[in-house]
Amino acid sequence: MIILFGVFIRYDEESDTHWIEHRRKKNISTNLENDFYYRYPSFQDVHVMIFVGFGFLMTFLKRYSFGGVGFNFLIAAFGIQWALLMQGWFHHLDEHDWKIKIGVENLINADFCVASCLIAYGACLGKVSPVQLMVLTLFGVTLFAVEEYIILELLHAKDAGGSMVIHTFGAYYGLTISWVLYRPLLSQSKHLQGSVYHSDVFAMIGTLFLWMYWPSFNSAIADHGDGQHRAVINTYLALASSVLTTFAISSISQNNGKLDMVHIQNATLAGGVAMGTASEFMITPYGSLIVGFCSGIVSTFGYLFLTPFMEKTLKIQDTCGIHNLHAMPGVIGGIVGAITAASASESVYGQEGLINTFDFKDAVANRTVNIQGGYQAAALFVAIAFGLVGGALVGGILKLPIWGDPADVNCFDDDVYWEVICCCCCFHKNKPEHVLCPFFIFLHQ
Amino acid sequence: MIILFGVFIRYDEESDTHWIEHRRKKNISTNLENDFYYRYPSFQDVHVMIFVGFGFLMTFLKRYSFGGVGFNFLIAAFGIQWALLMQGWFHHLDEHDWKIKIGVENLINADFCVASCLIAYGACLGKVSPVQLMVLTLFGVTLFAVEEYIILELLHAKDAGGSMVIHTFGAYYGLTISWVLYRPLLSQSKHLQGSVYHSDVFAMIGTLFLWMYWPSFNSAIADHGDGQHRAVINTYLALASSVLTTFAISSISQNNGKLDMVHIQNATLAGGVAMGTASEFMITPYGSLIVGFCSGIVSTFGYLFLTPFMEKTLKIQDTCGIHNLHAMPGVIGGIVGAITAASASESVYGQEGLINTFDFKDAVANRTVNIQGGYQAAALFVAIAFGLVGGALVGGILKLPIWGDPADVNCFDDDVYWEVICCCCCFHKNKPEHVLCPFFIFLHQ
Amino acid sequence: MIILFGVFIRYDEESDTHWIEHRRKKNISTNLENDFYYRYPSFQDVHVMIFVGFGFLMTFLKRYSFGGVGFNFLIAAFGIQWALLMQGWFHHLDEHDWKIKIGVENLINADFCVASCLIAYGACLGKVSPVQLMVLTLFGVTLFAVEEYIILELLHAKDAGGSMVIHTFGAYYGLTISWVLYRPLLSQSKHLQGSVYHSDVFAMIGTLFLWMYWPSFNSAIADHGDGQHRAVINTYLALASSVLTTFAISSISQNNGKLDMVHIQNATLAGGVAMGTASEFMITPYGSLIVGFCSGIVSTFGYLFLTPFMEKTLKIQDTCGIHNLHAMPGVIGGIVGAITAASASESVYGQEGLINTFDFKDAVANRTVNIQGGYQAAALFVAIAFGLVGGALVGGILKLPIWGDPADVNCFDDDVYWEVICCCCCFHKNKPEHVLCPFFIFLHQ
Repeated sequence: MIILFGVFIRYDEESDTHWIEHRRKKNISTNLENDFYYRYPSFQDVHVMIFVGFGFLMTFLKRYSFGGVGFNFLIAAFGIQWALLMQGWFHHLDEHDWKIKIGVENLINADFCVASCLIAYGACLGKVSPVQLMVLTLFGVTLFAVEEYIILELLHAKDAGGSMVIHTFGAYYGLTISWVLYRPLLSQSKHLQGSVYHSDVFAMIGTLFLWMYWPSFNSAIADHGDGQHRAVINTYLALASSVLTTFAISSISQNNGKLDMVHIQNATLAGGVAMGTASEFMITPYGSLIVGFCSGIVSTFGYLFLTPFMEKTLKIQDTCGIHNLHAMPGVIGGIVGAITAASASESVYGQEGLINTFDFKDAVANRTVNIQGGYQAAALFVAIAFGLVGGALVGGILKLPIWGDPADVNCFDDDVYWEVICCCCCFHKNKPEHVLCPFFIFLHQ
Repeated sequence: MIILFGVFIRYDEESDTHWIEHRRKKNISTNLENDFYYRYPSFQDVHVMIFVGFGFLMTFLKRYSFGGVGFNFLIAAFGIQWALLMQGWFHHLDEHDWKIKIGVENLINADFCVASCLIAYGACLGKVSPVQLMVLTLFGVTLFAVEEYIILELLHAKDAGGSMVIHTFGAYYGLTISWVLYRPLLSQSKHLQGSVYHSDVFAMIGTLFLWMYWPSFNSAIADHGDGQHRAVINTYLALASSVLTTFAISSISQNNGKLDMVHIQNATLAGGVAMGTASEFMITPYGSLIVGFCSGIVSTFGYLFLTPFMEKTLKIQDTCGIHNLHAMPGVIGGIVGAITAASASESVYGQEGLINTFDFKDAVANRTVNIQGGYQAAALFVAIAFGLVGGALVGGILKLPIWGDPADVNCFDDDVYWEVICCCCCFHKNKPEHVLCPFFIFLHQ
Repeated sequence: MIILFGVFIRYDEESDTHWIEHRRKKNISTNLENDFYYRYPSFQDVHVMIFVGFGFLMTFLKRYSFGGVGFNFLIAAFGIQWALLMQGWFHHLDEHDWKIKIGVENLINADFCVASCLIAYGACLGKVSPVQLMVLTLFGVTLFAVEEYIILELLHAKDAGGSMVIHTFGAYYGLTISWVLYRPLLSQSKHLQGSVYHSDVFAMIGTLFLWMYWPSFNSAIADHGDGQHRAVINTYLALASSVLTTFAISSISQNNGKLDMVHIQNATLAGGVAMGTASEFMITPYGSLIVGFCSGIVSTFGYLFLTPFMEKTLKIQDTCGIHNLHAMPGVIGGIVGAITAASASESVYGQEGLINTFDFKDAVANRTVNIQGGYQAAALFVAIAFGLVGGALVGGILKLPIWGDPADVNCFDDDVYWEVICCCCCFHKNKPEHVLCPFFIFLHQ
């Protein structure tokens, strides 16, 4: 990695000491025009989502909190380095000197890229080894870079918040891997496949940081000025709307009207996923509410009916329910994006606004909004196809018996990969005192 | 909600695609002049305070952490939508087309508005149903919008951090509701009305995020430039000061010199509340320290003596002690604001500075600082009056036996509204294995 | 404190209401040029690191979470006030009116200053009383201000992220104090000197917020424009690199290949510490990766071998292992900074870039990079010397038997300074019901 960075990666002109000469040459009046000041606050929010948001969201299992937050940390830190290289080669290679010039926007994009692999991890949580996760991430980032290149550069589709590029791809990638790695005897570790009271509260830390910072996620690489501003408003509204929907559906779906923490932790976020593609568009505030409303319904019903169905019938074991949180809302987001793009008009956007929003210039200067809508739809299929095919290939690789994956009975147990002590008697599990722990009999029966 | 948004809510000119034309017309040189770049970082901090800060602060109860953070999430997400409408109708209605044009400042104001309802929730924590909370929020937001209109627009009082508008109103609103809903037999659930070790640590997450981001809260809608800058410095100092005071008082108030987590979690924040109104003023750094010092003392003594007194004598059951954290420091903040405003002078503020800070222009161009001080004091009374009268009315509505509130014996228990499992034996409470839990006898005696 | 603030502290021209006149005089075109908008987002990130990052990192002990996060809160809030005064006297005293003019940069510097005392606290965690901590902080801040004055003003060394000024000084200060306060019978509280499952997850909150926001720490007071931008990129890469190294070393160091949470919580941060001094320099992206790689290795091996060795042979009891996380990576950072500075060249930096980066103007206008490298090395020795000598002196003061430090058997136990209840049976430790707690026998044996 160090060698590859040595050969390819350099600072871009905004993070290089030559910035002051660059400023003079370009007649830039103030240091504030450095992209750093446009994007750094959003970058930090996205960074929190990746490491605390995704990490703590996966601590909900009663005995896999270390693995949830720890392996998330490992693969995210690995992935961002690899993503800087892969995305650089595909998007940012300087044709003069064959170097990749990085700035804060590259760091955001690397975080985005890693998000797709963390989504895929959600389907496999507790059932794979850290080495398998590294392989999953290595190929995931590579596939992502190619897919992103096709969607954003070749198809010239817009996807500021990555409904298609990140969520749809990541989810189908993870689900296909989980399907290939199907474990028929997983019920042997069923007693560990749930939460305890405090692990659910830990997971709420993840949920809330994802929820709060999602407007930054969808606006981080949007256009300066009104683009970022509008993306924030749209995402904020869609998220608020899906919270209400989720609480309502979760409550009425149980006989006794009780709420299920799994729904609250996950489906409340569906609005942010579904608003990813269209966040920059003039979808209007009430349009955002409708998107959040629909995705909240779909996602909660997914947890209620689809996840059990998928596990039984389709043989897909989806630990975190990423199909409900990322796949379906991601597809909704892609469709909403295509429709919104196709129905854009100069009367709503203004002539210049339309060109700016969809970047109708250079090679695509003559593209109409209808054609743009078609390309958006095509992009959605590209994302799904990459997820399915890529997942099948990588799943095949991960099925090789060389990666040290845990036995069925040891799934969802930190004890396999971490030095842990009993949460009840505070003794290490191998110590004789632990045998006296009164809960030993319950936890291991 | 969707229909109302469809009819009334539109993007403002800074979040609309016409921004580029607006920029040219107004001769704005850079995208950075979009209000988004002035306010977005502060907005995100306020957002964290609302959802993580208030949410986790309310997880301290041993068996009501789900309700604390979960219902906080629900009513905040509902409230911000309703607040965008209500505040829009009162403050931001465009008289030409009868639409509300929203931008990032509206989002901040919606968060502020919701804060007052979350404060009110603090008094009722554990004793009301989610439906009651929705009603509390619906009316709370409405009352807030009217009260804010009177204070900020009609009286032209200044209240950047909302000591009066948010904290005083919210606290008296919640306390009056709690008084109307008094439960004489609440001691039946006394065994659940405390914390456990880990729930106290969770609550510290809330405390710290509130504490750290309070400078953003008080500066979020302050004037661009020196106003925001000064509000941050003042709040930072007041908060630091009240931490020291709280530790000192908490330690000397016990016979054995031990610290009480309840004080540390709450009274350390009193300085931020009390600095809300005067944060923009030239109160001077040592003035800020004095405000923090006084409010820390008052708040800690409130927890020690006033809360038990109120419960016994006044029949007000205040679960989180909002009277100590929000009501009293809020009133202090209002008084400090009135005094500081009345004693403002051109020699300290500069001629232009004085006009800018107090917005002495248009209808109030000839107002003197003494008169401004009087209006500030009037504003404080308006806030208290709205809290008391509004709370009595809404409390009356909530007393109707149709809202599904929990029985006295089930207060402070997540089991009523959530699917929970025993935190000791990890079994669902209805499962027969739970009967074997050795702590069953303790928890349910 | 209030009196000292009253005498000395005033707003600076960017936070004073005269800002508008100042703007006109200096011909500043926009409010955005107020330093607030350059530095406030970074300030908030640093603030989170100080209070949540350091605070929660120290919650890992099974029965000292209150003390970890609570005393961290106390001494940080005390320290920032004292630091504003001490740093003001040494760095920012206006020679005309003998006042200290504070703005957002002073708040950041106060947070930095406090960081060094919190690092020192890490060595003493669980073994000192809150009063001792206040004394440690009082002298620590004073020493820091002098040391910082010598390094930054007299030697004119660069240390944007404080590898030397903050980390090296703070660590040796704390280690020397811990050496003076050596407790030969500390093994009496050995049963409390470990973590439990959930306390390790709490500590991960601290780790992750430190890790994520470290780029802000190293860039907060860097030069506007490219300086801040480059510091972020360098730190981000160094951190990512040390995560991979830490996981690898932690895994291969155990016979069974299991990971140790202590390493993951701490050594993953070493890259940020080691990148402190050189963060502004053109160290190149791969240089950053190498720095992170080396410091991750050194830090993890430190936890494996050096900490036990130091405790046994050198009589230094280092609760949090700050020697591995701050002292060694800090020294690495200082050395890297000296080498990078000495090897800077006009061809890489550009003529103006070189002058800007190293501030070669006024008194040091003719300094060459080689000489700068020498001064950087000298600065490192100053930091170490201040830590050792200051620590010995303050340790001597703290050894006086007047500070109410806990008995050996009560170390690492919140029960000494906090009102706590048993985490198992939920009863206060002095209540008779607690005697029935089945874990009583385990925890207290």
